[in-house]
Amino acid sequence: MTLIEPFNTILDMQHGTLQPAGQVIQRRLSDMRNMYFDRSAYEQIMAEEGDRLIYEVYNAPELPKTEDQLLHCTTLIYPGRVGQEFHMTKGHFHAKRDRAEVYVGLSGKGHLLLQTEEGTVRDIAIRPGTVAYIPPLWAHRTVNTGDQPFSFLSVWPGDAGHDYDSIEKTGFAKLLLEQEGQAVLVDNPKFHR
Amino acid sequence: MTLIEPFNTILDMQHGTLQPAGQVIQRRLSDMRNMYFDRSAYEQIMAEEGDRLIYEVYNAPELPKTEDQLLHCTTLIYPGRVGQEFHMTKGHFHAKRDRAEVYVGLSGKGHLLLQTEEGTVRDIAIRPGTVAYIPPLWAHRTVNTGDQPFSFLSVWPGDAGHDYDSIEKTGFAKLLLEQEGQAVLVDNPKFHR
Repeated sequence: MTLIEPFNTILDMQHGTLQPAGQVIQRRLSDMRNMYFDRSAYEQIMAEEGDRLIYEVYNAPELPKTEDQLLHCTTLIYPGRVGQEFHMTKGHFHAKRDRAEVYVGLSGKGHLLLQTEEGTVRDIAIRPGTVAYIPPLWAHRTVNTGDQPFSFLSVWPGDAGHDYDSIEKTGFAKLLLEQEGQAVLVDNPKFHR
Repeated sequence: MTLIEPFNTILDMQHGTLQPAGQVIQRRLSDMRNMYFDRSAYEQIMAEEGDRLIYEVYNAPELPKTEDQLLHCTTLIYPGRVGQEFHMTKGHFHAKRDRAEVYVGLSGKGHLLLQTEEGTVRDIAIRPGTVAYIPPLWAHRTVNTGDQPFSFLSVWPGDAGHDYDSIEKTGFAKLLLEQEGQAVLVDNPKFHR
């Protein structure tokens, strides 16, 4: 087994960045074409405003994607909505379903939505200092329900992998919508298993 | 596979506690009888002051100790010294050596000492916002080099386990001592492999 050198990064708890970062991922509205409920709001933003930046992921320096490692990153979701639906991440299962993850809220306010393959949903509010546990088998998506950037730190095993396709195909069974200034969890009429 | 319910805890970033906690562990000076270098300073504290509280561990609510889970806790090391040697944790290898860990500095100032089975040592300074990576195969100990409580969050795999005995037997190859107001890393004359 190769000996890996210990290292550290610096977490900016106010802005949600990790420095020095490894791979930085930017997700724009067009990367989530099929994920927002309101297709006409999506088309209107694309036509009038362009391809809006929804969120960024700052990965820690690269590590082997093996079960003995712990990968970690920060995610920063910019505030905003597509129609009534708050900005959110794509959401995924772990490709290896029996892998967990730990989230630590850093800045802003948001929600963690979790969903099993059977469509059972859980909703955990995340504020700075909230530590959320994503057990094995639960898909997870985060949603910025505030008017400031929402950021959090994630830690997960190196062999977990990402399965975005399952969630893209079925959607989440619940949506977080803005209704009269509140974030309201409602059934997703487009959800299908 | 049993479906575990998602949960969250609240991290007090200023005080280093996790609420609601699962098991809370207190380590006192007598729990570390053979670990501090200066035996006469140890005996003097025990005789004059009693069995001093060195550090506390706030574990997250209990999870199965299996490879699919991620355990997490906070550790809070009170400031102080035993002779010249700063308050520290016992330090351990993972029983399953090929298991990693992630630390996030919360409050105070300290150091993370890492050591391989061959006695190679690394030293990482930890401040609030420092994210340190403990790769597989490295034993790890934390040291409070400040005059305030030093706390950090840890995340590690459920099947990692703790091997305290190996480190208790050999010691760490380096000590962090207070010398003229500075934290200085020096060779441990008592270290033996």
